[in-house]
Amino acid sequence: MQVQYFQTPAIPFKGETSTDPLTFRYYDANRVVLGKKMEDWMRFSVCYWHTFRGIGIDPFGGQTLFRPWDTTDAASSFDALLTTCTARVDAAFEFFTKLGVKYYAFHDRDVAPELASIDESNRLLDAVTDYMLIKQKETGVKLLWGYDPHPPPTLTANLFSAAKYACGGATNPDLKVFAQASAQVKKAMEVTHKLGGEGYVFWGGREGYQTILNTDIKKELDHMAAFFHMAVDWKKSLGANFQFYIEPKPKEPTKHQYDYDAQTVMCFLKQYNLDDHFLLNIEPNHTTLAGHAYEHDIVLAAAYGKLGSVDCNTGDELLGWDTDQFLMDERKATLVMKAVVDMGGFTTGGLNFDCKVRRESTDLEDIFIAHVGSMDVFAKGLLNAAKLIEDGRFDAMKSERYSSWVVSELGQKVEAGNATFAELEAYAKLNAPTQISGKQELYERVFNDAL
Amino acid sequence: MQVQYFQTPAIPFKGETSTDPLTFRYYDANRVVLGKKMEDWMRFSVCYWHTFRGIGIDPFGGQTLFRPWDTTDAASSFDALLTTCTARVDAAFEFFTKLGVKYYAFHDRDVAPELASIDESNRLLDAVTDYMLIKQKETGVKLLWGYDPHPPPTLTANLFSAAKYACGGATNPDLKVFAQASAQVKKAMEVTHKLGGEGYVFWGGREGYQTILNTDIKKELDHMAAFFHMAVDWKKSLGANFQFYIEPKPKEPTKHQYDYDAQTVMCFLKQYNLDDHFLLNIEPNHTTLAGHAYEHDIVLAAAYGKLGSVDCNTGDELLGWDTDQFLMDERKATLVMKAVVDMGGFTTGGLNFDCKVRRESTDLEDIFIAHVGSMDVFAKGLLNAAKLIEDGRFDAMKSERYSSWVVSELGQKVEAGNATFAELEAYAKLNAPTQISGKQELYERVFNDAL
Amino acid sequence: MQVQYFQTPAIPFKGETSTDPLTFRYYDANRVVLGKKMEDWMRFSVCYWHTFRGIGIDPFGGQTLFRPWDTTDAASSFDALLTTCTARVDAAFEFFTKLGVKYYAFHDRDVAPELASIDESNRLLDAVTDYMLIKQKETGVKLLWGYDPHPPPTLTANLFSAAKYACGGATNPDLKVFAQASAQVKKAMEVTHKLGGEGYVFWGGREGYQTILNTDIKKELDHMAAFFHMAVDWKKSLGANFQFYIEPKPKEPTKHQYDYDAQTVMCFLKQYNLDDHFLLNIEPNHTTLAGHAYEHDIVLAAAYGKLGSVDCNTGDELLGWDTDQFLMDERKATLVMKAVVDMGGFTTGGLNFDCKVRRESTDLEDIFIAHVGSMDVFAKGLLNAAKLIEDGRFDAMKSERYSSWVVSELGQKVEAGNATFAELEAYAKLNAPTQISGKQELYERVFNDAL
Amino acid sequence: MQVQYFQTPAIPFKGETSTDPLTFRYYDANRVVLGKKMEDWMRFSVCYWHTFRGIGIDPFGGQTLFRPWDTTDAASSFDALLTTCTARVDAAFEFFTKLGVKYYAFHDRDVAPELASIDESNRLLDAVTDYMLIKQKETGVKLLWGYDPHPPPTLTANLFSAAKYACGGATNPDLKVFAQASAQVKKAMEVTHKLGGEGYVFWGGREGYQTILNTDIKKELDHMAAFFHMAVDWKKSLGANFQFYIEPKPKEPTKHQYDYDAQTVMCFLKQYNLDDHFLLNIEPNHTTLAGHAYEHDIVLAAAYGKLGSVDCNTGDELLGWDTDQFLMDERKATLVMKAVVDMGGFTTGGLNFDCKVRRESTDLEDIFIAHVGSMDVFAKGLLNAAKLIEDGRFDAMKSERYSSWVVSELGQKVEAGNATFAELEAYAKLNAPTQISGKQELYERVFNDAL
Repeated sequence: MQVQYFQTPAIPFKGETSTDPLTFRYYDANRVVLGKKMEDWMRFSVCYWHTFRGIGIDPFGGQTLFRPWDTTDAASSFDALLTTCTARVDAAFEFFTKLGVKYYAFHDRDVAPELASIDESNRLLDAVTDYMLIKQKETGVKLLWGYDPHPPPTLTANLFSAAKYACGGATNPDLKVFAQASAQVKKAMEVTHKLGGEGYVFWGGREGYQTILNTDIKKELDHMAAFFHMAVDWKKSLGANFQFYIEPKPKEPTKHQYDYDAQTVMCFLKQYNLDDHFLLNIEPNHTTLAGHAYEHDIVLAAAYGKLGSVDCNTGDELLGWDTDQFLMDERKATLVMKAVVDMGGFTTGGLNFDCKVRRESTDLEDIFIAHVGSMDVFAKGLLNAAKLIEDGRFDAMKSERYSSWVVSELGQKVEAGNATFAELEAYAKLNAPTQISGKQELYERVFNDAL
Repeated sequence: MQVQYFQTPAIPFKGETSTDPLTFRYYDANRVVLGKKMEDWMRFSVCYWHTFRGIGIDPFGGQTLFRPWDTTDAASSFDALLTTCTARVDAAFEFFTKLGVKYYAFHDRDVAPELASIDESNRLLDAVTDYMLIKQKETGVKLLWGYDPHPPPTLTANLFSAAKYACGGATNPDLKVFAQASAQVKKAMEVTHKLGGEGYVFWGGREGYQTILNTDIKKELDHMAAFFHMAVDWKKSLGANFQFYIEPKPKEPTKHQYDYDAQTVMCFLKQYNLDDHFLLNIEPNHTTLAGHAYEHDIVLAAAYGKLGSVDCNTGDELLGWDTDQFLMDERKATLVMKAVVDMGGFTTGGLNFDCKVRRESTDLEDIFIAHVGSMDVFAKGLLNAAKLIEDGRFDAMKSERYSSWVVSELGQKVEAGNATFAELEAYAKLNAPTQISGKQELYERVFNDAL
Repeated sequence: MQVQYFQTPAIPFKGETSTDPLTFRYYDANRVVLGKKMEDWMRFSVCYWHTFRGIGIDPFGGQTLFRPWDTTDAASSFDALLTTCTARVDAAFEFFTKLGVKYYAFHDRDVAPELASIDESNRLLDAVTDYMLIKQKETGVKLLWGYDPHPPPTLTANLFSAAKYACGGATNPDLKVFAQASAQVKKAMEVTHKLGGEGYVFWGGREGYQTILNTDIKKELDHMAAFFHMAVDWKKSLGANFQFYIEPKPKEPTKHQYDYDAQTVMCFLKQYNLDDHFLLNIEPNHTTLAGHAYEHDIVLAAAYGKLGSVDCNTGDELLGWDTDQFLMDERKATLVMKAVVDMGGFTTGGLNFDCKVRRESTDLEDIFIAHVGSMDVFAKGLLNAAKLIEDGRFDAMKSERYSSWVVSELGQKVEAGNATFAELEAYAKLNAPTQISGKQELYERVFNDAL
Repeated sequence: MQVQYFQTPAIPFKGETSTDPLTFRYYDANRVVLGKKMEDWMRFSVCYWHTFRGIGIDPFGGQTLFRPWDTTDAASSFDALLTTCTARVDAAFEFFTKLGVKYYAFHDRDVAPELASIDESNRLLDAVTDYMLIKQKETGVKLLWGYDPHPPPTLTANLFSAAKYACGGATNPDLKVFAQASAQVKKAMEVTHKLGGEGYVFWGGREGYQTILNTDIKKELDHMAAFFHMAVDWKKSLGANFQFYIEPKPKEPTKHQYDYDAQTVMCFLKQYNLDDHFLLNIEPNHTTLAGHAYEHDIVLAAAYGKLGSVDCNTGDELLGWDTDQFLMDERKATLVMKAVVDMGGFTTGGLNFDCKVRRESTDLEDIFIAHVGSMDVFAKGLLNAAKLIEDGRFDAMKSERYSSWVVSELGQKVEAGNATFAELEAYAKLNAPTQISGKQELYERVFNDAL
């Protein structure tokens, strides 16, 4: 019989009046909202790195989180390591199942640490991911939902923790390190393919600079582009069909990260003819670090058809680092879910909990409380978005605001690219504008009516 | 005989030991540095808006700067207005001449205020700019330099001060306002052409949003692109050859400005096929507001061949608004001038003093002290950059850092786009990297040796 | 018969299901919550400067708000000026009455502009405030509430707009300007006394520095303290009993304002023996500009018995300037109202709407929509706070967290100041701590249950 | 014979023209500047934690710095641990000696890790610090300076790394943890006394909150005050005469740290009658994180006689975390040294290099390059400050600016606290101010003349 790592039972839906933190108040996977099941709107995913590998260290402190699945010594034999790794897989799948989440995300090094050689590292990664494949199938059976036999993962390679990547992976000045990164991503892509992963994310944590004094930005970006082109080619060789994502972040750990924000990445993709092969994975905590409103990159990426997936955490606008907190604010969740609904929902992506419990939240149940609390906030956000849409006033006000472009022939001509300044000047001389209020406070109030 | 607005005489070069604030210590226009005259490296330009129209107001206070050229009432007759406007032109050209600067920059509304109709506004603008043309020729004569008959201006239209532009010009939800903006830019381009202007700048102060709730980002950006395409067409119609620039800024007065930073603008230009027609005018005060290092956008734009011109001011990294201060820090000036020298100098652009004396700096001579002080700082920056280049260590260290790409056949193959992950994996297995120090502190020290 | 400036009728309470923006959903003045009437918990106040003097200018743009009460020319005769000023008073009292708000706040210069001499300025201020006193009594009659004959104002002197105050009022390097500020505050205090004002606020907008290079901080703070001591003495001479407040702000318009945040002001008050005479007026927009959480200064000032009043606006944590927006976020309103309830409510202070409609919100009704929307948000915040308190879990969790200090004799001894390190060391050797979770996510969830 | 850990020889002074990074260009310990030896103005101190314990980890990456003195396993026996610890002491003293620095600073846990019990931890700490005392004397002998027999340390206890301190030490909700912190500080004070330490610093890294929701701020601050009072008492018991310092920091690792900035700490000291016993240790990296100019807290603390010592690093104003970089900017160094000279130099404190080489700076010599480079920058800063003072213009301009207070009888009366608003009003009516320019740009220029 399987070890149970958590005393917490599977989380039930009990509705708004429940006060038990280990129940759902709003999230009811099968409830149909705007014609689709809640779980299909959300596509919640649990992240392996924070929830199963996080131990509470921060720049000023050591381990505070001691987990029952972290039993054996890091310096062990291959077999002992494998045992540790698979135990952690058991814990993870127990958690996914009890939480009722069908997706998960991990880095290669989360599930299997790097060993002395590329071959050794790959051997361990193969063994662990073989086991994960089994667990994916198994838990599919255990789940009553039927239609989905396994939680498909999103994968990503960790090119930022090892000492060799201190000055970057794909942008490292040293070709040898670039080669290491290539080998690692090649393998990670193969594992993604094996596991039926729906997505593959590039987060370039060290692809940036600490000081412009020692850096040739152009050369580094050229190398990064070459790297991505090779990834595109390799995916083709594999016959794989997972989606590539790039995840923007402006800084930390670097002074400047090349993938600063959504538009910076979109610029890079255009400059290097990579546009067709990548979508964006937006993390709002990164968006606010870049100085934009929480929802900005989500809305902007969606507007250009580039929103692939969301790391649904939050930061603290007044702190200058990535706090990766669980979102507990329904206002923000409503903005996110409104954008998701407006684009018709996710296809390959979803809402991935790239969130960590605080290092002071040391009880094992805290990871349940945090996920459940935030899932409910997003569920409430979806319900609010639906209310906003069904009420209709909000979207109608916005349409009305741009209506002059629709009703006027000249407006249509401008939009079609067929007008000239001379025509517009002539029009301007005859049509002085009257003042139209932007009515921000009214929009805010109507938005509030849906909360 | 011409009225003299300033008691200050023409500013002489007196060298490093002078302590008189109204002399140059480092800036010697004709001194040859790295094979080119100092003034040709710098191409200093004075801005009309701050220096001749600034009156010291800020969000919490009224006028503190009372200028001798602001003599008549704003509500006057056409002729009285014209007199005021040309008096100001006289003051400006007296200042340019005494300072020894050959370029200037202005908005249409700086030199001639908006009147009741487009036709009236244009009539005044025509009259004032006719006079400016005369002054351009005149001062060319007065200057002993000979080879340059007039200070060519950079021009830009003010689409942000008037009430009608509260919700944007080219991105206004109301077609009528869009038409107003079109008419105004059309005219401003015509004036630029008449004056022999070398550049035309778009700074989209209100092209952005205050709240995403009432905004359709995509529609607004589509309209902005249509606007720029019409500008490109109109320039062609005019047979003009001035350079178009876009000046990025992340925020203020808007919550989010669409031209956030260099890469955001480059993204926009690619997305809408405008890339061939625009360069960037980088203002470091805006760069730091966007969260980047002072020199970042300059270096980055230069790396991609998009650096056209520089608004050579500074902000305060700890304040969240545009302070438009005169740069008084030679370290930063050295970084700027190093980038300018590395790209071979400006062509159409230059260093434009988009700077204002503090509202507490109420003496008329303060505008001389400020310009002279900052010109010296940039001159010192150029001398430092030359020293850095002639010493050679700095650039050699950087080349060495990327040398593995040059010496290795595989590196060349990657850069040419012909390598695969499989080749790199094979190489990686045979070539474990050794640790190479980034040596940031050494770079900083070698840099300091040049100051 | 009185002119009516607003078409909007008096705002009714219609309850949660209303969708008309000109109704209250939550704010019902006479509803009893936690044993006190809603209006007594809130003590809402309207600010004169934004709502009746704001015309929509910002650092990049001119007037966008054209108000029906701004009818005559600023350059008029004394009598014409008085007519303009009293017309504005009529508009203001019409607004207060229709909104159902019993308090208001103004600067001296809001209601009567500065004239050529101190005597002239005071004569106008006297005439206008005499009329305001009449209106206070009149509207008391018009209101059906009966028990409160007039809306008592909070007053403050504007020592930041005039050119003479560019380098500060009470901290100006020039004694002559210090004297001007003294005369102005003296008069403003006299007017406060005449009007039965309940409070007098000092906001030292220019009491700070733009550059430390030209500033003697210590001397300026000594002068500021001398200024406050004279104010304390003058209040005594007047026999007045209004409350003095200092309002902290970290920066803007200065680079550094001396009254940086709550604790900086509390430090100053202690250093100069002014502690007994001043409370704090906290503006959360200033709190976030100082880098603290929205509610931080409110909670902290309350903890030390120094919270006098609140300027109940909000800023934008991602913008570096004072946006003075209407708070539309019930989460933040709940945090504020919880702190207010925990301290037993306001005595002399209240919630003052130091908020302005956006400059794009140009309809006259927008000032109603904004106030009504935000009053509802605070009313909802109060209801949430009551729910949180009545549920009891939240406060109980917090008490439990500190219980070790209550149950242990040693804890009591430490708190009484009677313990030594030696005793604690002995205790420590015998009592190793066990890990106790901080449970942040649970606190957030329980808090959410009340929203 | 002693092992040598560094190949680098003792650092010579070679003057401005040297280009060898391992020489001093400006720092010449015995050169007399403004009547005092350079080393006595600077009192440079090396910090143990970064330079001898830093291994390059950051929130996203593992060890990059592999030091020759980190030889044995952390999990070793007491004797093996002691060997490791003393080897590190040897390396440290070799470094201090070669660098020519007479002071150092350490946390208890830097030199001796925490063991299973308080007694065990103390036994190791005793053994290591006994050895350090020997080394202090020894290196005194080895040094040719003669007059100073040992490098006196500044000490501090680490109450932030261990898991038990996750929710604070002196402010922990759990009395048991408070007792642990008491025992640890008691011991650290005893060690300071033994080593002849000149100072003892409190940096309350975890004394703050992560969320206000679970925190009773007042109770925590009361406990912190009780803690400090016990420290004051214990120092008296020991008969020790080292100086206590508190080091402000606004945030990181906490959301809000109670010792936010200089004035917040000064407020706390006043509120709890601790003012006589503590000075401040200012770290400019923390100052900028709190939103103040680099030099602000240094200047402000000095103005109130509270500047004890300086952690002479720098941060990056555009990054929101503590980068602890070596200052390489002479402008900032000049501001610091001007303030230090103006207060007559340090007494117990000095310039402590709380700085770390970047994690990419992996060569052992990088720690020499960094210290030498920054010592030179401060030496240049001192020379600049001397030049500024000897030139005289700068200070004279500032005195002149405040002269109206000196020449006027009324000014003197105000400063003495004997004036009234009535007197000032009378004076104001007769003495209208004239506009006086703040001349910021001139101050900046005159300052630049000294660089």
